Amino acid sequence: MPRTLKIAAAQMGAVHRDSARQDTLSRMIKLLQSASTLDAQLVLFPETAFTTFFPRHLISDHKELDSFFEHGDNLAGSPNTKPLFDEAKKLGIDISVGFAERTADGNGYNTSVYYSASQGEVIAKYRKVHLPGTKEPFENPDAVNQLEKRYFEPGNLGFKAFRAPDLILGAQKKGAGSVQPGMGDPILGMMICNDRRWAEAWRCYGLQGVEVVLCGYNTAGFAPDLWGTRKPMTPKEAEDDAVFHHKLVMQGNSYMNSCFSVSAAKAGLEDGKYDLIGGSCITSPEGHVLAEAKTKEDEIVFAEIDLEECRQGKEKTFDFDRHRRIDQYATITLQAGVVEPELL
Amino acid sequence: MPRTLKIAAAQMGAVHRDSARQDTLSRMIKLLQSASTLDAQLVLFPETAFTTFFPRHLISDHKELDSFFEHGDNLAGSPNTKPLFDEAKKLGIDISVGFAERTADGNGYNTSVYYSASQGEVIAKYRKVHLPGTKEPFENPDAVNQLEKRYFEPGNLGFKAFRAPDLILGAQKKGAGSVQPGMGDPILGMMICNDRRWAEAWRCYGLQGVEVVLCGYNTAGFAPDLWGTRKPMTPKEAEDDAVFHHKLVMQGNSYMNSCFSVSAAKAGLEDGKYDLIGGSCITSPEGHVLAEAKTKEDEIVFAEIDLEECRQGKEKTFDFDRHRRIDQYATITLQAGVVEPELL
Repeated sequence: MPRTLKIAAAQMGAVHRDSARQDTLSRMIKLLQSASTLDAQLVLFPETAFTTFFPRHLISDHKELDSFFEHGDNLAGSPNTKPLFDEAKKLGIDISVGFAERTADGNGYNTSVYYSASQGEVIAKYRKVHLPGTKEPFENPDAVNQLEKRYFEPGNLGFKAFRAPDLILGAQKKGAGSVQPGMGDPILGMMICNDRRWAEAWRCYGLQGVEVVLCGYNTAGFAPDLWGTRKPMTPKEAEDDAVFHHKLVMQGNSYMNSCFSVSAAKAGLEDGKYDLIGGSCITSPEGHVLAEAKTKEDEIVFAEIDLEECRQGKEKTFDFDRHRRIDQYATITLQAGVVEPELL
Repeated sequence: MPRTLKIAAAQMGAVHRDSARQDTLSRMIKLLQSASTLDAQLVLFPETAFTTFFPRHLISDHKELDSFFEHGDNLAGSPNTKPLFDEAKKLGIDISVGFAERTADGNGYNTSVYYSASQGEVIAKYRKVHLPGTKEPFENPDAVNQLEKRYFEPGNLGFKAFRAPDLILGAQKKGAGSVQPGMGDPILGMMICNDRRWAEAWRCYGLQGVEVVLCGYNTAGFAPDLWGTRKPMTPKEAEDDAVFHHKLVMQGNSYMNSCFSVSAAKAGLEDGKYDLIGGSCITSPEGHVLAEAKTKEDEIVFAEIDLEECRQGKEKTFDFDRHRRIDQYATITLQAGVVEPELL
């Protein structure tokens, strides 16, 4: 008995520093409607989907900085974002979407939420654990800043998998008379951008039996060669390499954790100058790319998947109970530098 | 200042259950001599390189089973294996090679050693941690057994990185007057076959600053579809998929740990019936395949690498000290099943 799910990434083209919030919101709603014509049940939007990726800028104007954040815990109620959730409810589509979160005590987080259309509310929240970049801007004026460590605190909600209710039809859910392990609604996990390069994030979800990892991102197409050890690359080659790395970690970690993944980019030339990669894709538990963005614009990437395909890996090659050797892993929970290698 | 290393995988074609040990040894010596013509400084041989991959058989004859093992700690002194080490010393090439190890107290391990030509001795040993397969044979007579859990104990030596002495020339080693972090002889780590699919193995080495991971393997070209959830595949498609998975984990984990990797297959139709994949390759810290086997026979796969290329990743995207969040990783050292997800 298959457990089918129609799933989509809503890739977004560039959003600029001066883009009107309502315009961006309209684009997102249009993407959702487009996914609806494909009968998508779950749509993933990018990291900081409602605005430009502002951590590339050193912003000293508090009012401007504040305009990129949403306050409090009521994303589905904020006028800047509510229409998207209303549309999701109306269309009966679950959505996951990233935004900059400001808490009541003033902390910032790079956050994503999962909104269940059947429940009519946000049922899960994730805060990005692996913040890249630096706290202080680079001295080199040509360097592109990545100030996530300045604007955000590291995520403090862990990697908590959750079931998305009512996505799997009753007959498929029940199997032949009884609920089997792995049956029921899909087990999902959220991560954000750079998290996808960290095997620890995937494994924390994998240990909870995750079936679909959702990952929105904003990824620069060009990274400076700090050590002068790379072959010189054209901007096009650098961007191709960044897309290669993105797909490599989505495919490799999906395979090693026997799960599907959906990734959604904010892509294109933001703020008229900063190139973000596309490459939004859906990968299988065998590590294959099932669907992939063709553009760097607003685009729906769609696949119909069968969650039962996770079982081959989870119950054989990657049967964690039988094969993991946790007595050998102790150093993983130590910080690098704490570990003194016994080198000759 | 580059830190160059000429490195090779010695892929081996099939070795049969009834192959004469001396014939196999001669092939290995010939491979080493072939690598020497390329000025290779380090050559990796496969897992259980000296014999067929016997764990596919249920072997009840103790004498036959014993014939596949080497006893004690003196691999470089055993008549079955000594000529290879003698040749390595003569040619001035370091080698790493896999074999079935029998300890004094009767335990079996799937082991590899690292022999330093300049030291004239084995300087490091690794015992495979992630044993695949089952302890008992399958009831289905058509199933191909994988009885590593029957014949071997899980490795108990951890993942210990080590430096291979005298491989980097003095001028390259010293840099501009002082030894810098990351300078000096190469930092190596050994893993065996199935270990390469486990991100934990890679991370344990990554945390020690590993620069080259060495991995010998025997990997079946066809794996049974236990759940009937995969698209039906021809043997050729199944083998291509197995090679895809092999390269995916070598590339993905090399990238995520900013290290090179060398992998060496025992390939081809062993025992006249059991197909093993080829695909021996060398990957870069950026996750690219630098060199790759073209056959499923005895073949040298060679690359000249610059260890300094590890620094780009180790000091930026994958700077563990700055970016890892160990407070979020606690579940990784728990066994699956111990972790109760907070699901709806």
